[in-house]
Amino acid sequence: MRIDELFTERARHVPPPMYGPGRPEDDNQISFTYGLADPDMFPRDDLLDATARVLATDAADALNYAPAFAGLREQVAARLRAEGVEADADGVLLGYGSSQILGLLPEVFVERGDVVLIEGPSFMGAVRHFGDAGARLVTVPTDARGMDVDALEEILRDLRRRDIRPKFIYTIPTFHNPTGATMPRGRRERLVALAAEYGVVVVEDDAYGDLRFEGQPEPVLAALDQEGWVIRVGTFSKILAPGLRVGWAYARPEIIARLDKFKVEGSTGPFLTRVVAQYCAEGRLDAHIAELAAGYRHKRDLMLGAIAREFPAEVAALRPEGGFFVWCRLPAGMSATALLKASDARGATFLPGTRCFADGSGDDSIRLAFSFVPAARIEEGIARIGQAMRSL
Amino acid sequence: MRIDELFTERARHVPPPMYGPGRPEDDNQISFTYGLADPDMFPRDDLLDATARVLATDAADALNYAPAFAGLREQVAARLRAEGVEADADGVLLGYGSSQILGLLPEVFVERGDVVLIEGPSFMGAVRHFGDAGARLVTVPTDARGMDVDALEEILRDLRRRDIRPKFIYTIPTFHNPTGATMPRGRRERLVALAAEYGVVVVEDDAYGDLRFEGQPEPVLAALDQEGWVIRVGTFSKILAPGLRVGWAYARPEIIARLDKFKVEGSTGPFLTRVVAQYCAEGRLDAHIAELAAGYRHKRDLMLGAIAREFPAEVAALRPEGGFFVWCRLPAGMSATALLKASDARGATFLPGTRCFADGSGDDSIRLAFSFVPAARIEEGIARIGQAMRSL
Repeated sequence: MRIDELFTERARHVPPPMYGPGRPEDDNQISFTYGLADPDMFPRDDLLDATARVLATDAADALNYAPAFAGLREQVAARLRAEGVEADADGVLLGYGSSQILGLLPEVFVERGDVVLIEGPSFMGAVRHFGDAGARLVTVPTDARGMDVDALEEILRDLRRRDIRPKFIYTIPTFHNPTGATMPRGRRERLVALAAEYGVVVVEDDAYGDLRFEGQPEPVLAALDQEGWVIRVGTFSKILAPGLRVGWAYARPEIIARLDKFKVEGSTGPFLTRVVAQYCAEGRLDAHIAELAAGYRHKRDLMLGAIAREFPAEVAALRPEGGFFVWCRLPAGMSATALLKASDARGATFLPGTRCFADGSGDDSIRLAFSFVPAARIEEGIARIGQAMRSL
Repeated sequence: MRIDELFTERARHVPPPMYGPGRPEDDNQISFTYGLADPDMFPRDDLLDATARVLATDAADALNYAPAFAGLREQVAARLRAEGVEADADGVLLGYGSSQILGLLPEVFVERGDVVLIEGPSFMGAVRHFGDAGARLVTVPTDARGMDVDALEEILRDLRRRDIRPKFIYTIPTFHNPTGATMPRGRRERLVALAAEYGVVVVEDDAYGDLRFEGQPEPVLAALDQEGWVIRVGTFSKILAPGLRVGWAYARPEIIARLDKFKVEGSTGPFLTRVVAQYCAEGRLDAHIAELAAGYRHKRDLMLGAIAREFPAEVAALRPEGGFFVWCRLPAGMSATALLKASDARGATFLPGTRCFADGSGDDSIRLAFSFVPAARIEEGIARIGQAMRSL
């Protein structure tokens, strides 16, 4: 008897891993491919100090069966209130990275065939979960100011005409992955108003928003939302350390309770959540965010400077005001896939735009992460890609 | 427009929380209710030391985006090999506690209406996930030597007659939760043979097996399994600290790949898995397990002694050779639910047997966890329950 006859329909197919190894094997290789954090900026001493404090003062709760630390939910709620969201800790769900929250969304919202709106391009690490669950993905175009809300309205109107109510709109309004774009206030207000008008949830993925290098913050979508259509999703990955795997969602209680239901392992670990909360206490987090923003800003500037010098003038690079990424449109006729091959041979890699669209388009663009590569090697890496461009 | 119209069918209903607060609010209350670890035995200094080592030597991988530490999977595989399982690290999946693995099982195996065999009584924390997924639960009776394999064979034969192939058999063969019973080798061999004959997966939940107080270990089911029908599930919760939330599964690769697919947050955190691996290195874990076994053995002995003195002679207590629990059958006509009320009023609580059966039976039995209550208070707690028994 065969064991595979026992598998559920949804378990039959195992997709290949989406991402390769994060880091290049070869020390000479310069990888702008993934949005890894800068390893030189991890607050190792402060994290150890926080761990020591937790183990010294709170081990009985931190190490036994216990729910996620309520104090961390309170800290998240306080940060939300500082952004103008009337949040309390009960509306906050902690998860193992925002990936977990985003990965659980389909359980709550997606029956096979349901429509989900995504941005083009977008973060496929989240989008693939929607697709795996059987969502029909409809792509809303974006530009240098984020989601094109005129196009969104047209899509919503067209769907309503066909009696289709989409389940949610997945958006990264601030320092977008992959484009780095930030939606201006006017677009944000219209997006939230459209969500309410059409009765559609908005998933606001804001992994990078705290890392602003310049300019004034735009209001977060959850702060503009009067009716509770927005699920705000955040993480400690970019502002503290991805390897800790602590993220969160804020939404109205019906949604939080349902996301929690599908978090089958139960509450996020009491040890981990206490270490993060202890670290964040005493203002350390905000001081660290300021250091990170300065560090990443420097790297962005190095990258933009090198792009201006090393890339053909026809390459159009978007200047992000924060976050991890520079998005470049390639000269007409140049293929990102072909460029990656030529560039890899010269010792530098990036994410081709095809990896950022649900429909495989995007071969005219590339995403360059400036976050991970040491500052001293950014210019060399961009020069290698520039050489590859000229070789094509 | 209403937001609840957007929810999936499976998200409509949110079950109430299964467990109350783990610890009593009132300091005078003595709780034998939950299988919490002994907080006085957490290796706080060694855990801090392990964390310091990880942050000093491996922070770049521990704190960035990275898969679960392969070294921990290797350590689990080595422990499996020591138990006679021909395991390698590729067959090991790490999860956030074994709860996560058990909670994901239905994704891989359970379509609505599928039959799953469970033991009666069993660990409802796992079983409820099977039920939530729509499994039809069929209960196999157990006795002081674990699962009744004659009854199992009869059930399998009967189901086959009706053309029903169950998806899996969920068993806790060693230091059973809640009964403390351990299946002898003969029953284990028959269970594994029946699984192969009927083409049914066996989920071997072995959370407590390392905590043996006396007697010789029985072979683990995975070691008896020649054909790959067994999924062995373990955890660092009872031998290190539940609050870390690190568990694992070992099974053939097709199953591991599928469990992994539904672990939407991705690989278990690189920080957490490194801290645990660093702790376990250098023989610390085995030394700690020996200390734990001595400590829990002492508590078991205190509890059994107190039961002999304080409970009416008609109470039949099972003597566990390891683990966390003593299971007692109450005198004829005494209700566990009524006893809990009377006992709670006297300042001591336990888990009524009704919480250990899928069908709500079990009102004739109670589970007493000796793991959590300080040794100095065990006798007093049992005396309170004994008074409650006599008051009924």
